[in-house]
Amino acid sequence: MRTLYHHWVCPFSRKVRIVLAEKKLAFEMVVEKVWEQRPEFLALNPANDVPVLVEPNGAVLADSTAICEYLDEIQPDPPLLGSDPLVRAEVRRLVGWFEVKFNREVTINLVGEKLVKRQMGIPGGPDSRMIRAGYAAIRLHMDYLGWLTERRRWLAGDAFSMADIAAASHLSALDYIGDVPWESFPAAKDWYARVKSRPSFRPLLSDHLPGIPPPKHYAYLDF
Amino acid sequence: MRTLYHHWVCPFSRKVRIVLAEKKLAFEMVVEKVWEQRPEFLALNPANDVPVLVEPNGAVLADSTAICEYLDEIQPDPPLLGSDPLVRAEVRRLVGWFEVKFNREVTINLVGEKLVKRQMGIPGGPDSRMIRAGYAAIRLHMDYLGWLTERRRWLAGDAFSMADIAAASHLSALDYIGDVPWESFPAAKDWYARVKSRPSFRPLLSDHLPGIPPPKHYAYLDF
Repeated sequence: MRTLYHHWVCPFSRKVRIVLAEKKLAFEMVVEKVWEQRPEFLALNPANDVPVLVEPNGAVLADSTAICEYLDEIQPDPPLLGSDPLVRAEVRRLVGWFEVKFNREVTINLVGEKLVKRQMGIPGGPDSRMIRAGYAAIRLHMDYLGWLTERRRWLAGDAFSMADIAAASHLSALDYIGDVPWESFPAAKDWYARVKSRPSFRPLLSDHLPGIPPPKHYAYLDF
Repeated sequence: MRTLYHHWVCPFSRKVRIVLAEKKLAFEMVVEKVWEQRPEFLALNPANDVPVLVEPNGAVLADSTAICEYLDEIQPDPPLLGSDPLVRAEVRRLVGWFEVKFNREVTINLVGEKLVKRQMGIPGGPDSRMIRAGYAAIRLHMDYLGWLTERRRWLAGDAFSMADIAAASHLSALDYIGDVPWESFPAAKDWYARVKSRPSFRPLLSDHLPGIPPPKHYAYLDF
């Protein structure tokens, strides 16, 4: 059995969970609180990040991009990176958009301040400057997501791909704290409803952090 | 002819330059000062980042990872990602190490504060708190680089790969400001000398920023 070390609110862990499910690869999950800096976990991944995937033969993989590329190579069906080099470049560009730019400008400011700090037991509450920056940035990113979803069936083109998975992983973490202004972006909302309805995505919608319930619409397909 | 939009001190641009040279693909370079937010460049890449690669047929590629994976697909010789899925996962893990963790903890703090701010004409000089954080972090990263280079011929194993290119791209930007403590890490220094001696790397060593010359050892193979 594969083992995935993950954390509930980590979008990079969510991405790997969805990819494993899309490819129908069985796995068990272990929650890793990286801020506890467990020596056994540091031995698996000196970067002390989740996700980490341990293969049935004991091989250890770290870095969510490395893991997802690996899974697409060993289990090509369904393909999640696209059918030719230019499509794959567009898929990977959008993965980078959400995992570097969106993560830095939105996820760290909002999910980091509101959820991760609390999980880690850091006193003092969210930094209001970061919250304001996150709220300003998410609208710009939703404009771009709206622009894409008005023009394409899925984010990178005609096929569901790693770009949809990466984007939805970040948005689902933000949706858990009710911070996505879906109403102003109907095409993006329609796209997210289609992602939510996929069997691979459903397990994420039943995640509940102890003491921090999600808003009601979080798990609804019709939100 | 391919066109690469880049900036001299951007490690992600440096990585693409080296990959193009390793694969013997001809290209011309255009310096893009992204802080000027040129509308023509934003139309090529709404993330307003370098590098951007424009193919001879007009196809536009952004995001350095997307570009490098694309180049390895269209020109597999020499292979820069490794020979099997687990090796490729290790190459990509190390690329992620340098481009996410090292970049955040070292490059942004030192190259960002000392070089990029000055290039952008931001007054006030470097933030001393960031400089201190960068100096502390680079020693921890050099410990890890030392550990790797004492055990492996190249960073991800027996073959020169994208991991060496990503790491050397960041280290070369830091070396331009004399901030790499090579003397304390002889195995890492020996590895970097071998990277420097590759024909693909030589053009980077003649880069000179106007008004900010590199230290003498920057271009020497025997440093």
